Amino acid sequence: MDLKQVLEDKASFFNKELEQFLKNGKPPTLYNAARHLPMAGGKRLRPCIAMLSCEAVSGKIKNVMPYAIALELLHNFTLVHDDIMDKSKLRRNMPSVHMKYGEPTAIMAGDLLFTKAFEAMHNLSLNLQIFKKLEYGMINCIREICEGQQLDIEFEIRNDVTEQEYLEMIRKKTAVLFQLSSEGGALSCDGSKEVVNALSEYGESLGLAFQIQDDCLDISSDEETLGKDIGNDIRNGKKTLIAVHCLNNASGENKILLSKIFGNKNATNEEVKKIYKLFIEIGSVEYAKNAAIKYNEKAKNALSVLRNSNAKEALIQLADYSIRREK
Amino acid sequence: MDLKQVLEDKASFFNKELEQFLKNGKPPTLYNAARHLPMAGGKRLRPCIAMLSCEAVSGKIKNVMPYAIALELLHNFTLVHDDIMDKSKLRRNMPSVHMKYGEPTAIMAGDLLFTKAFEAMHNLSLNLQIFKKLEYGMINCIREICEGQQLDIEFEIRNDVTEQEYLEMIRKKTAVLFQLSSEGGALSCDGSKEVVNALSEYGESLGLAFQIQDDCLDISSDEETLGKDIGNDIRNGKKTLIAVHCLNNASGENKILLSKIFGNKNATNEEVKKIYKLFIEIGSVEYAKNAAIKYNEKAKNALSVLRNSNAKEALIQLADYSIRREK
Repeated sequence: MDLKQVLEDKASFFNKELEQFLKNGKPPTLYNAARHLPMAGGKRLRPCIAMLSCEAVSGKIKNVMPYAIALELLHNFTLVHDDIMDKSKLRRNMPSVHMKYGEPTAIMAGDLLFTKAFEAMHNLSLNLQIFKKLEYGMINCIREICEGQQLDIEFEIRNDVTEQEYLEMIRKKTAVLFQLSSEGGALSCDGSKEVVNALSEYGESLGLAFQIQDDCLDISSDEETLGKDIGNDIRNGKKTLIAVHCLNNASGENKILLSKIFGNKNATNEEVKKIYKLFIEIGSVEYAKNAAIKYNEKAKNALSVLRNSNAKEALIQLADYSIRREK
Repeated sequence: MDLKQVLEDKASFFNKELEQFLKNGKPPTLYNAARHLPMAGGKRLRPCIAMLSCEAVSGKIKNVMPYAIALELLHNFTLVHDDIMDKSKLRRNMPSVHMKYGEPTAIMAGDLLFTKAFEAMHNLSLNLQIFKKLEYGMINCIREICEGQQLDIEFEIRNDVTEQEYLEMIRKKTAVLFQLSSEGGALSCDGSKEVVNALSEYGESLGLAFQIQDDCLDISSDEETLGKDIGNDIRNGKKTLIAVHCLNNASGENKILLSKIFGNKNATNEEVKKIYKLFIEIGSVEYAKNAAIKYNEKAKNALSVLRNSNAKEALIQLADYSIRREK
């Protein structure tokens, strides 16, 4: 099975549905701002996970589509607001929404995507109990994303963040939406409790692996390949698993170097490079890579209760991809 | 009947329910920021309207409370984000959320209130059809609030806004949430179609009267009595009904004065006062006051299909209050 092809086919099917749902409206500026990111493509990982999870429980793809749209809109809503908070200028090699449309319109564009996610849910044909369960999952997920994002901000000015605190932060900030995708994908297609729980664990572990791999990529990539500002994470004192490990294991001169440069907004490119080097020397990059592999294994193991299918195979390959990807 | 007492009793009952629902959480900063406005009291107009509309159709107050909470949280979510967009420093005589907690946390606090509004809805005991109808009303309302807010921003740099455009803007920005309160209050208590429609019209007209009265108050009050920055509306070129009428009716020297000062961020206090004076001389303040009275009458007339009750009487008095209030 060719995972790339499977994902591309699913994304292409999804894009048509999204295009139909997220129509233009008035005033045009607001809708253009809201459509800026979702219509720019992307891998559609969360919708793909929901679609594959639906197929893995023998559900009909058609039935999960409103939910897949809701997931993608929620994801994009968080990106729009996150970019404002982080003052990020670029996203997917384009200007971020607030850079292009100004902050007030960007805040509202995010709010509009948020409410459109709930609107999408109303196209699901489900009984009250399952509808409420799915929607409640979404509500909890957004709450946890807000909590995770706030923790992320608060961690920036703390240098004593533990690995456990870091994991809780990325679980909330990133993993819960993956979890919602796989769990809800199965739930909306009438999956059994056992399988829904298995897919829930899969999504959470996949999300953790994905975020840790993201941390590793930020270290090794440059602006061109990843479409994000570089060095910012170090200047902002961003607590990635690599940084947390390094801060907890550096000693002597290295500790002094870290305290001087890490989190220093005015650090030079040369200084930033020194910290990159330290991350490798202390073994923090290696440590993070191994952690990603561990969660990848956990994700795959969770799927053992599922009967064999192309969808299950794709989910397994997707977990492997999440720690092998280069952007 | 003493309207003030009725509203105070209802607000007091509501506050206890809200306090129970909007509990503290972790990280505390996020929850403190989210609770900053809703826990600061206020008149609770929208919950009161929902509760009165419920009583007007002989519903049980208890059944409408989750909906009343959702309305108040939505209202507060829009205030938090609006204050960021408008760079307002004060709200209810306190620092606005972004002034106290910083912009990133304020954006998230708004998002958290937004999602908590949907969470509150899950405490309603309704069948799927009514639940979806109520929730869909909420979704549409937020969409229209975003559209109205964007129009408001876009109108600031336009001096050719028509009265019709202005009315559409305040309908979306302000009136739809009043409409949602009265309509949904009756709907959640099994009101008949005729009565639900009547209360829907009541809420919309009340909201228009309320916003136009707000425009008039902004003109005649100062920072101390209203808890808002003064003169800002004139310096920002804010399109109130008064300003729209004046721009469309001024001529000669007055037109030149307007084009020089109205929308000029650097206008002096003396200049701002000149515009205040012009608003009165041209009859724009009088015009706006009459428009508020017209919508107030429309709101009261809509209630004629309701059987007589204390709740109906309170809704009538509330409409009168909306154009007589001084803050």
